[in-house]
Amino acid sequence: MTQEVGRRTGRRPGSSGAREQILAAAKRSFAETGYERTTIRGVARAAGVDPALVHHYFGTKRQLFVDAMELPANPAELIEGLVATGDPEDLGERMIRFMLKVWDDEENRAPLVAIVRTAMSDDHAAIMVREFAKTEILGQIVKAARGDNQELRVTLLASQVFGLLIMRYIIKFEPLASADAETVARAIGPTFQRYLTGPLEVAE
Amino acid sequence: MTQEVGRRTGRRPGSSGAREQILAAAKRSFAETGYERTTIRGVARAAGVDPALVHHYFGTKRQLFVDAMELPANPAELIEGLVATGDPEDLGERMIRFMLKVWDDEENRAPLVAIVRTAMSDDHAAIMVREFAKTEILGQIVKAARGDNQELRVTLLASQVFGLLIMRYIIKFEPLASADAETVARAIGPTFQRYLTGPLEVAE
Repeated sequence: MTQEVGRRTGRRPGSSGAREQILAAAKRSFAETGYERTTIRGVARAAGVDPALVHHYFGTKRQLFVDAMELPANPAELIEGLVATGDPEDLGERMIRFMLKVWDDEENRAPLVAIVRTAMSDDHAAIMVREFAKTEILGQIVKAARGDNQELRVTLLASQVFGLLIMRYIIKFEPLASADAETVARAIGPTFQRYLTGPLEVAE
Repeated sequence: MTQEVGRRTGRRPGSSGAREQILAAAKRSFAETGYERTTIRGVARAAGVDPALVHHYFGTKRQLFVDAMELPANPAELIEGLVATGDPEDLGERMIRFMLKVWDDEENRAPLVAIVRTAMSDDHAAIMVREFAKTEILGQIVKAARGDNQELRVTLLASQVFGLLIMRYIIKFEPLASADAETVARAIGPTFQRYLTGPLEVAE
């Protein structure tokens, strides 16, 4: 889309093309350096615009983050499609295959990587991440699996989902980082399944 | 033991200063070049002391890392005790119980939390963390479990270890954050065990 914008003729300087460029630069900056170290000034420089223009469009760095994080599709809707079809007993495997399909595309995962990095250094972002994950994504999947202790299952699932995300895509721990999706799906799928529907002993 | 060395009397002037200088140089070196490429000799040179003095104070690179990062105890030695006793088939459960015992004490986990947070926003720190985890800790446990594909097992284990660390202690995702150790051990232990000794299908 940015390319199309770039090809447009006759647009005024600083119009919607600049907004797209700022969002793209912000996305990169949040993904690469995290929330704290991203600055309006730095994003403006990367986008080749005046910092005042970034302030004009987005006001604050927080708002810039919110707009830059706009995902290519509504993940909650995609997840609903995932859980609506098929057996709860296969859900773990379908879930890991779906996640890998989305995340193995670097452009798709960039916003998520940025959000997770931010959550590690910013308590507000951490709250945002866990609430979004709980309400919109993992909570929906756990509900569909119909196990007991659903709240605990959501958080166990989150520990492996985020652990994988971090090791494969952020810390890039080899050979997990370069392992083909099939190998990873076979290794992690049963863990997801156990957290979804397996026995869970909650101590008194 | 290190404290005893510090308490010795009759030592030459400047020796405790030298110890501090060695620790500062080690901290920089681990952060900038990672665990593998840091050497006792390189740290000694950067601190302006003889390598023999570094050996005298710290013995091994592992101990130098533990002291420079202000870890409360030498995890590798504790891990060796863990794997030396008992059956590989119980290793996952012993591992999670041991981890929870250490990490549920806030003072114990503080340095580790700091290192992990840093690794999320700093590539050099990320390299340092994964190299230390691989060489000195998880690699040792996986080796003791004697499964196939040990390199991949180390990274799968890392994904759940760090996922738990982050969700329970950093992002504090409830109810996992407040769940009693027994519940967590029963939930996560089988995952560790599967990554240590369970079947692992590596795609062609």
